[in-house]
Amino acid sequence: MYRTHTCGELRLEDAGKSVCLSGWVQKVRKLGAMTFVDLRDRYGITQLVVGENAPEEVKNSVAKLGREFVIQAKGTVIERASKNNKILTGDIEIDVNEVNVLSESEVPPFTIEDQTDGGDEIRMKYRYLDLRRPCVRKNLELRHRMAQLVRNYLSERNFIEVETPVLIKSTPEGARDFVVPSRMNRGQFYALPQSPQTFKQLLMVSGFDRYFQIVKCFRDEDLRADRQPEFTQIDCEMSFVEQEDVQEIFEGMIRHLFKEIRGVDIPKLEKMTWIDAMEQYGCDKPDLRFGMKIVELTDVAKGKNFAVFDSADYIGAICAPKCAGYTRKQLDELTEFVKRSQIGAKGLVYVKYNEDGTMKSSVDKFYTEADLKVWAERCQAEPGDLLLILVGPKFKTLPQLCELRLEMGNRLGLRDKNVFKPLWVVDFPLLEWDEETQRFYAMHHPFTAPKTEDIPLMDTDPGKVRANAYDMVINGVEVGGGSIRIHDSALQAKMFDCLGFTPEAAQAQFGFLIGAFKYGAPPHGGLAFGFDRLASMFAGLDSIRDVIAFPKNNSGRDVMIDSPSEIAQEQLDELGIELRKDIEK
Amino acid sequence: MYRTHTCGELRLEDAGKSVCLSGWVQKVRKLGAMTFVDLRDRYGITQLVVGENAPEEVKNSVAKLGREFVIQAKGTVIERASKNNKILTGDIEIDVNEVNVLSESEVPPFTIEDQTDGGDEIRMKYRYLDLRRPCVRKNLELRHRMAQLVRNYLSERNFIEVETPVLIKSTPEGARDFVVPSRMNRGQFYALPQSPQTFKQLLMVSGFDRYFQIVKCFRDEDLRADRQPEFTQIDCEMSFVEQEDVQEIFEGMIRHLFKEIRGVDIPKLEKMTWIDAMEQYGCDKPDLRFGMKIVELTDVAKGKNFAVFDSADYIGAICAPKCAGYTRKQLDELTEFVKRSQIGAKGLVYVKYNEDGTMKSSVDKFYTEADLKVWAERCQAEPGDLLLILVGPKFKTLPQLCELRLEMGNRLGLRDKNVFKPLWVVDFPLLEWDEETQRFYAMHHPFTAPKTEDIPLMDTDPGKVRANAYDMVINGVEVGGGSIRIHDSALQAKMFDCLGFTPEAAQAQFGFLIGAFKYGAPPHGGLAFGFDRLASMFAGLDSIRDVIAFPKNNSGRDVMIDSPSEIAQEQLDELGIELRKDIEK
Repeated sequence: MYRTHTCGELRLEDAGKSVCLSGWVQKVRKLGAMTFVDLRDRYGITQLVVGENAPEEVKNSVAKLGREFVIQAKGTVIERASKNNKILTGDIEIDVNEVNVLSESEVPPFTIEDQTDGGDEIRMKYRYLDLRRPCVRKNLELRHRMAQLVRNYLSERNFIEVETPVLIKSTPEGARDFVVPSRMNRGQFYALPQSPQTFKQLLMVSGFDRYFQIVKCFRDEDLRADRQPEFTQIDCEMSFVEQEDVQEIFEGMIRHLFKEIRGVDIPKLEKMTWIDAMEQYGCDKPDLRFGMKIVELTDVAKGKNFAVFDSADYIGAICAPKCAGYTRKQLDELTEFVKRSQIGAKGLVYVKYNEDGTMKSSVDKFYTEADLKVWAERCQAEPGDLLLILVGPKFKTLPQLCELRLEMGNRLGLRDKNVFKPLWVVDFPLLEWDEETQRFYAMHHPFTAPKTEDIPLMDTDPGKVRANAYDMVINGVEVGGGSIRIHDSALQAKMFDCLGFTPEAAQAQFGFLIGAFKYGAPPHGGLAFGFDRLASMFAGLDSIRDVIAFPKNNSGRDVMIDSPSEIAQEQLDELGIELRKDIEK
Repeated sequence: MYRTHTCGELRLEDAGKSVCLSGWVQKVRKLGAMTFVDLRDRYGITQLVVGENAPEEVKNSVAKLGREFVIQAKGTVIERASKNNKILTGDIEIDVNEVNVLSESEVPPFTIEDQTDGGDEIRMKYRYLDLRRPCVRKNLELRHRMAQLVRNYLSERNFIEVETPVLIKSTPEGARDFVVPSRMNRGQFYALPQSPQTFKQLLMVSGFDRYFQIVKCFRDEDLRADRQPEFTQIDCEMSFVEQEDVQEIFEGMIRHLFKEIRGVDIPKLEKMTWIDAMEQYGCDKPDLRFGMKIVELTDVAKGKNFAVFDSADYIGAICAPKCAGYTRKQLDELTEFVKRSQIGAKGLVYVKYNEDGTMKSSVDKFYTEADLKVWAERCQAEPGDLLLILVGPKFKTLPQLCELRLEMGNRLGLRDKNVFKPLWVVDFPLLEWDEETQRFYAMHHPFTAPKTEDIPLMDTDPGKVRANAYDMVINGVEVGGGSIRIHDSALQAKMFDCLGFTPEAAQAQFGFLIGAFKYGAPPHGGLAFGFDRLASMFAGLDSIRDVIAFPKNNSGRDVMIDSPSEIAQEQLDELGIELRKDIEK
């Protein structure tokens, strides 16, 4: 061992001990004839002092030290004259009598400090240096701790972690698979799993009863919006359960994490139906840290000869508290915000409910103060509040109101990262109609069970069928989701039929699962959490990249190792594949 | 929840309780007017009884039950008249008053019992049914428990589990990579890692100090000898350590596993040099459950005009205790054994040291009884023992003697699966010369450090350099291996040079690691255990396949899901690749 202690563990009571530390040179300071070195490792920083009377060779060694040199220092623990109460080792320093340079360092391309001078690009290229920054390392330590807590929580509850295969079979359905050409079976390909869904269901058919896995999944899709081609799920499945049983276990797990990691007691989770979430928050992942719910005004705002409103499918408002004083400029900003192409509203109507009780709106021409008071009342607005109103087709306007609501939440400082409001969103539609391809798609996946009472609707009105599915949402982010699964081959066949699979296509894709259901499948269900997302939320970060040791960029590239890259012609030959002629090698 | 209790938990003290159980029908027996059903789940088997006075509909339901139906049964716990002390629930049964069939089952293709009538092929095709057999499930439960023990052991010792990427960069060096075409970077490929070696070393450069991961690795090689294209490693790395530090931690981990899983106290591990292992056991993974060490006879057996021996590079023997009475047939069998092409000896010489003190050998023509006594003495043979002797080039003959020794160990019942003899093999050669390509290869990998005192030999006699490497061997199986790594760019460059890399090729392949070493790399080292192998050893199994939920066969195929398989032309088009013309689609 190159050390007797780490750089984080010596205290005043160790004074007098002979010790040996190893680590990185954080800083070197000269003060007259004295030299101070901050020595850093994962566990902390300890101050080394080379005094006037130190051996000549020590003085010489220390004179040549630079930032990020790796050294070993031997000496005696002494009490510091001027203590540093910002660090736990701040009461002591090491009076050094031997220094060995273990590795020199070139000047790093950016400073190894929480507040670094390095931009995103250079930090990713030198990710191994970026990871030295304590703030980055702490995120990965947190992630480790969460994984351990999850595993122990579930193991204590009889869940078995089972590794499912990574080299599986490609399914043209769903999002995009990465494929892997097989050398031993030339012309054939494996696929990397987008999730272990079918395997965990097979484990339930096998009687494993309770399964979990913290597992890498893969999706070859365009990487906007903080996604990664490889990501990690906490994947779980249980047998002989109903929705509430699954929720109870995993709500408990999340509560346990909040308690252990953040010291927060989370009350029992609210359950909100999908339709309520849509109508009140404009989306299926409501941020409950603040109110400002969406209120429908369609019935009260029509019939006053304002053509835009009279012809509208839907009119909805949010009430921004204490914002009646918004200036023209502020209101213009909000109008610009909702008209951005990502949001796509045509315009914004406002109603100021002034402190003095008067009303002022952008549609005063069409509505009397009494009319506007009705709206305000519907919105439970008080004097001083501001109504913001959007119109259009209902399920286009609701998401716009959602964005506007979140924007107002930001402006009013209502989205505190240290406040956590988890909930379950339930009763999702089973199927989503796609106009372009003129067919239904599974909103979750083809194995999600419909609510028992809605099964007859599968034949008559598939779009109305509710799924026995549930998402866990925290602060506007979907952190996990799952469902009770179909465990009956006949119902599964009906589901494939709704999705436009021919029986042959269903058999080719999922034959093994349909087959398995013929030999006694238990009722089962489960869910999966996005572990990267969950960890970044617990770490108070905006991007999942910060909780991934070696993330890829928006083009799916690892700029540190320069991957993906070309491979040798011999490798292609062995695999029996060729690049298409139109690709420049 | 479809149950109040599992099928493994009810006891006599629960008598009188109203309960609800769910599970699979293991067996239905009729006894007069009574019907008994063995209901099975992961936790055990509970007997249901439908008596004469049971409701008619219950009698009707039970009459229709078949093997592997999934049912829910409600009733009262009662004491059994005739108890079954083979199962923990054997004191009670359930007097059933309601039965619900949750899933019917076709007759399974083999019996769901430890002693099944299903062959290997059909069990793999219906792996989800094979996994129902308690003996198979128990292996995976054991694997889970081991993974948990390992994670907790290492976490308690400040190791952080860090997920390293699965989509990395192909390295033409070393064994075969699986590659993954990138859709977003057409013409370029990711590779799947054969191990996280470079990433864990980067984490050490990053100051993570102690890293571990239980992680899937991938190797596209011919799958003889119980290998899988995807396999799992317990991968570890530590900073500021020497060989002994790494060994202490991981020896402790293995001892902990033996204690917890098998209830065995393992003493401190012996360390054996590679050359001792080769000379005494004929291989670098000696099985120490029995003696019968190899003894060299070259010096004492030459010079008696037996041309085969006189011209031999090496003559070696093992002494099989109490085997002097072996018949001609038995000796012929052993001769056939060593002459098999996998072993390749030319023949076998025996010397019987009879109980009466006389000697009898297959080379009596050339050697006197006194000559043979010298051999026997060298081998510490006693009257009644049998010497078995092979000759040839030393490092071809030693592995043959190794196989012969193991065979004799099997025949004599000396390889008890419930005895465990772990050891460290150390001081491996750094480099291996390959005659075919006329160059050196790294015996472990290119990042393994040479022993400090041997570094000068890298220039003068590279084949003589010993590595700072170590393998953990248990019962003749290499369960793990590792090394202290090079942490100095100059030494790493010298190593690449020994391996015949041009500086440009080294830079192209490992530029990021060489680069990282320029910014202060700590001394570091680590190791990796083959988790599949380790789990199969703890489970007392011969094949790693039995501790893998969904293994692939010897052609790398998953016969259950029928993978690998062809993919759609559109997928190939998107990826910018084509199958070679000579491959039939």
